[in-house]
Amino acid sequence: MAITLGELAVRFGLELAGDPGEAIDGVAPLGAAGPGKLAFCTGPRYRKQLAATRATAVVLPRELAADCPVAALISENPYASFARLAAGLHPPAPVKSGVAAGAQIAESATVAESAWIGPCAIIGAGVVIGERCSIGPNCVVEDGARLGDDCRLQAGVTICHDVAIGARCVFKPGAVIGSDGFGFAPDVDGYVKVPQLGSVRLGNDVDVGANTTIDRGTMEDTVIGDGVKLDNQVQVGHNCRIGAHTVVAGCVGISGSSIIGSRCMIGGAVGIVGHLEIGDGVIVTGFSMVTQSLPGPGIYSSGLPAIESATWRRTVARLHRLAREKKS
Amino acid sequence: MAITLGELAVRFGLELAGDPGEAIDGVAPLGAAGPGKLAFCTGPRYRKQLAATRATAVVLPRELAADCPVAALISENPYASFARLAAGLHPPAPVKSGVAAGAQIAESATVAESAWIGPCAIIGAGVVIGERCSIGPNCVVEDGARLGDDCRLQAGVTICHDVAIGARCVFKPGAVIGSDGFGFAPDVDGYVKVPQLGSVRLGNDVDVGANTTIDRGTMEDTVIGDGVKLDNQVQVGHNCRIGAHTVVAGCVGISGSSIIGSRCMIGGAVGIVGHLEIGDGVIVTGFSMVTQSLPGPGIYSSGLPAIESATWRRTVARLHRLAREKKS
Amino acid sequence: MAITLGELAVRFGLELAGDPGEAIDGVAPLGAAGPGKLAFCTGPRYRKQLAATRATAVVLPRELAADCPVAALISENPYASFARLAAGLHPPAPVKSGVAAGAQIAESATVAESAWIGPCAIIGAGVVIGERCSIGPNCVVEDGARLGDDCRLQAGVTICHDVAIGARCVFKPGAVIGSDGFGFAPDVDGYVKVPQLGSVRLGNDVDVGANTTIDRGTMEDTVIGDGVKLDNQVQVGHNCRIGAHTVVAGCVGISGSSIIGSRCMIGGAVGIVGHLEIGDGVIVTGFSMVTQSLPGPGIYSSGLPAIESATWRRTVARLHRLAREKKS
Repeated sequence: MAITLGELAVRFGLELAGDPGEAIDGVAPLGAAGPGKLAFCTGPRYRKQLAATRATAVVLPRELAADCPVAALISENPYASFARLAAGLHPPAPVKSGVAAGAQIAESATVAESAWIGPCAIIGAGVVIGERCSIGPNCVVEDGARLGDDCRLQAGVTICHDVAIGARCVFKPGAVIGSDGFGFAPDVDGYVKVPQLGSVRLGNDVDVGANTTIDRGTMEDTVIGDGVKLDNQVQVGHNCRIGAHTVVAGCVGISGSSIIGSRCMIGGAVGIVGHLEIGDGVIVTGFSMVTQSLPGPGIYSSGLPAIESATWRRTVARLHRLAREKKS
Repeated sequence: MAITLGELAVRFGLELAGDPGEAIDGVAPLGAAGPGKLAFCTGPRYRKQLAATRATAVVLPRELAADCPVAALISENPYASFARLAAGLHPPAPVKSGVAAGAQIAESATVAESAWIGPCAIIGAGVVIGERCSIGPNCVVEDGARLGDDCRLQAGVTICHDVAIGARCVFKPGAVIGSDGFGFAPDVDGYVKVPQLGSVRLGNDVDVGANTTIDRGTMEDTVIGDGVKLDNQVQVGHNCRIGAHTVVAGCVGISGSSIIGSRCMIGGAVGIVGHLEIGDGVIVTGFSMVTQSLPGPGIYSSGLPAIESATWRRTVARLHRLAREKKS
Repeated sequence: MAITLGELAVRFGLELAGDPGEAIDGVAPLGAAGPGKLAFCTGPRYRKQLAATRATAVVLPRELAADCPVAALISENPYASFARLAAGLHPPAPVKSGVAAGAQIAESATVAESAWIGPCAIIGAGVVIGERCSIGPNCVVEDGARLGDDCRLQAGVTICHDVAIGARCVFKPGAVIGSDGFGFAPDVDGYVKVPQLGSVRLGNDVDVGANTTIDRGTMEDTVIGDGVKLDNQVQVGHNCRIGAHTVVAGCVGISGSSIIGSRCMIGGAVGIVGHLEIGDGVIVTGFSMVTQSLPGPGIYSSGLPAIESATWRRTVARLHRLAREKKS
């Protein structure tokens, strides 16, 4: 799908420095792009690659326009503009509507006519599926769950009973929303299961990664705000609340009943213990363990960078010795 | 489903301080409960919430009975009592029996008449499914696997060939039991797969979280004891043995051939290396790495709490310097 | 399936010290093996178990042959030889061919006649499935994906659109290959999704663990080299490249755009941040965080071993104090 630079500039509200008649048929990285391709450059650290680019055009900030050897689309936020341009140049296939062979839809379910129910997808009693939703193969939407318009469940997603989902949410393969939280009361001969009577509520524009799991609440709901983005293999415990536009990288574990503010950024493999509160705008760098409430905004860390093992072993030995030393 | 306080007291063996005729129709948190609701209070730290509660009744320890402004159900273990009361007030739907459309059951499988085989569930040759089991949609039970009575597989669970499971086990969506362990022998041109000829044996009352994985043994079985509770996204390597009533929180990884005692508590995101032994009653706090055998009982840790990043960076620099310093 | 020692020695090219007529019908651990069983012993640290073994024969290095009380198969690499012998004695069931009930294959897909498509497996448009592939129950192979010969997808595996896979790759249950990478551009009112237009390419003999996820690239492909072995619950971010014969243990997270060399060994629960390069032959020990490029070969670490909690708390307090102290 080729579009002229002039058309792109108009459609995406960008200033064009260059020939508006040149055609663009796709995107490519700055260093690898060839003729017909659009690349992006976010800042001066890529100036060298910019100078050498063979792309037909580059999205960049005004400060780099003079350094651009080819056509430039000037943006205050080149990365966001590029994301929109790339989506325009490579539009996703439109959602089919209808019901595939092997799908099973309970009689009491309400499925929009514009929605697609894929092969062997199982839609339970009382389920509501909004307009233009796409339910992938082998997905399970249990009784009473509700999906807003334009949601997309890829293959093998499980939405448990009574979970409520906003519009435009995306679920990657293997995601599980609303399984029972990990609640067990110790007793003399083992553990007694605590019934998990709450549900999960997701806002609009939530993105849930592959094999990510979000547990339902015990007595109240687990709540995920608008625009939250969860990467793959994230675990969200029961009763958690995550504020709008917070981003959580892969392999993060969030224990039960923790409250995370809006516009936070949680780095990969972070662990957050339960029953604490993280303020708005908090950044936690990768591999950190959050053990207490953190006021926001702020940046917090406890990850240790790997070094040569022999040196590291000496470091650990010295560290363990610290506790035995007298206060200096 | 409303039940009088008097009936609850008798049925669950609790002492009632209050009007036995008051009706309870559900549970709610102490701070949010309204009329008709039962809440719980485990200790004096919640005294203030207790004083302000609008619940109709509260399960609590004797020491707090005098502080309770409403009816009280007195228990030596209020949390366990509450779990049982909540299950009584909100009973799970009874398991249906029969076979859903799209399910496939091998001729040589033995499925109890009282069991439910959900849509598109695949039951292999020689499989045994006990009384009142519920096999959810899109589950796969491979050849030769055996499930005791009252097991519940939610959606998309995989039980691999010849795995043996006790009674009353629960498997949340996406759990995988009995996939091949990670065994590869290094050789001159890469790795040779070591056949994984053992299986997995689970006791009774085991709970397996969403997307949790338990590998089959190499030559002997991986063994999970009675009453073990595994949270979501736990990984148990081949040949491990986990003792009865041990609880493992989310995102824990247990390497192969490790032996964990009974009644242990393993915190979230803990890593346990292989070929070691953890005694009975050991507690490992979250985000710790267990590198050697630990006698039990005892509490062990190595997690680092996150602090402000600027301070943390200085701490790391000082830490790395330690190894270079002369012994003081 | 019983085979004589003489036949095993010839077939696997090993020197036999003992009676070539003795029959072997399976493998077992050195300490548990009984008559008819073959065990292995890799080094002098198992000398005591070797002396006491009741196995009929043991695979071992020449240096231990004199200590072996029973027949010995002598190998320069006893573990690799044992892996091959075990596979010979316990051959996997041959792959069936054909299409199971409930499977759905798009008309434009090309499926080898010798391949097996399991129950409720969904094969998309333009897919190519090589000779003797086995596609397990409830697997999904999306449009345009290509699998080489002899690949094995166990239950519930998802191969996303246009992913290219070599020969003899194994995918354990719940693995997800080619879901969209985690790319979002921050903008004034939240995040804009960055289209993920690349794919995933896997070499030959790649092993992918249960519930492991590999994201597709943004503009170029994520690339996994020949013979790479990924354990369960590994996460590989978009645009990563992993060199041949690298082994990644369970629960590892690799952030986007990182390049890992060949013949590396990445320990369990390691976290690797994005946009860095790890050289050939690097070993990263378990629970380490890699924050910068690491030259290879070399061994790197930052994991902290768990100790008694009371001592650990004092250690952490002293550590945090370090940053506040004057340089000594």
